[in-house]
Amino acid sequence: MDRLTLHEDPVSGNCYKIRLTAAHLGLPLERKLYDIRKGETRTPAYLSTVNANGRVPVLQVGERYLPESNAAIFYLAKGSALIPADRWDEADMLRWMFWEQYNHEPNIATLRFWLAYVGRDNLSDAQHAQIDSKRAGGEAALKLMDEHLTHRQWFVGNSFSLADIALYAYTHVCEEGGAFDLTGYPRVQGWLARVAGLAGHIRIDS
Amino acid sequence: MDRLTLHEDPVSGNCYKIRLTAAHLGLPLERKLYDIRKGETRTPAYLSTVNANGRVPVLQVGERYLPESNAAIFYLAKGSALIPADRWDEADMLRWMFWEQYNHEPNIATLRFWLAYVGRDNLSDAQHAQIDSKRAGGEAALKLMDEHLTHRQWFVGNSFSLADIALYAYTHVCEEGGAFDLTGYPRVQGWLARVAGLAGHIRIDS
Repeated sequence: MDRLTLHEDPVSGNCYKIRLTAAHLGLPLERKLYDIRKGETRTPAYLSTVNANGRVPVLQVGERYLPESNAAIFYLAKGSALIPADRWDEADMLRWMFWEQYNHEPNIATLRFWLAYVGRDNLSDAQHAQIDSKRAGGEAALKLMDEHLTHRQWFVGNSFSLADIALYAYTHVCEEGGAFDLTGYPRVQGWLARVAGLAGHIRIDS
Repeated sequence: MDRLTLHEDPVSGNCYKIRLTAAHLGLPLERKLYDIRKGETRTPAYLSTVNANGRVPVLQVGERYLPESNAAIFYLAKGSALIPADRWDEADMLRWMFWEQYNHEPNIATLRFWLAYVGRDNLSDAQHAQIDSKRAGGEAALKLMDEHLTHRQWFVGNSFSLADIALYAYTHVCEEGGAFDLTGYPRVQGWLARVAGLAGHIRIDS
């Protein structure tokens, strides 16, 4: 495989997904750091070369650039046990990854970022007005995850997959800044411990 | 393949993606209709059997249920020319599909639904307060698409793929209710015409 470079902000769970996937696969990954709070992913150079959408993460493979965290981990894991070989299970894995980006990340990741990294006093009026709906949406996502895990060890089939990595990234830090409280979600807590206990696991701050 | 049933609301672009993919693949699809404005996807029966997340579309395959439109079209198209065989192109296709659900749909689909189907007078205060940001986000998405299409016929590689289907679904109806105006996006307009001109194409109201 061509040389792999991750364009990232280390506090981003979306970026961590890619480092965690690479760690499980034993793939070396160079890191290029940006601070999204300082606008470092909105510069003309970044927009013209790395990602016209002005976001991290972007996985660079040789001279090509792949934005979107869940697309990047799919690229890295193609052909490995992190993507189920069964047609239904592969689609069901993608189902959880699309759900993560639509129902989970915009609520859980955003509220954690606002409260733990931007700071409540620095939020705009529009952001303040959305705190309650973000919290309600995040709680609904955690409840759905907890119920899904009632008789399951992993999100898809009987093995650890990219669905678990995608959902772990922001779930395991959702209590930062008091954004969420996992006390009421014991099955989610058990699953978080299983993920963190796997051989090959790395922490978000590693 | 087991019998395919689409649980859907006919006005939803996310549901249309699945009908359009099935049409291109020549797959028969039974349709079970719900009105999301009447809460028909939030009934206890729906939540316990079809989708705990209370949304459409859901693709039913035999006795199994697959939510998330982009996961469902991936399942249907697996092994077909609608998913590039090349590893990079397949991941790049998923990149556009994740981008669609994160940056495109929450702005373009939501504002079109509010203005054309709920009606401006029926919106809540919280919804009214988001109209400007949804419009700005949608315009940014259309601009990014237009620039990407500068030297391209299709979103990924040199052929029509699921990325085009996922992006076509809400882009082609984005002017409904005055939500957006495609006048300033000529390359998007050209691409919409190419998609609609393909053999096997069906309309959203078919």
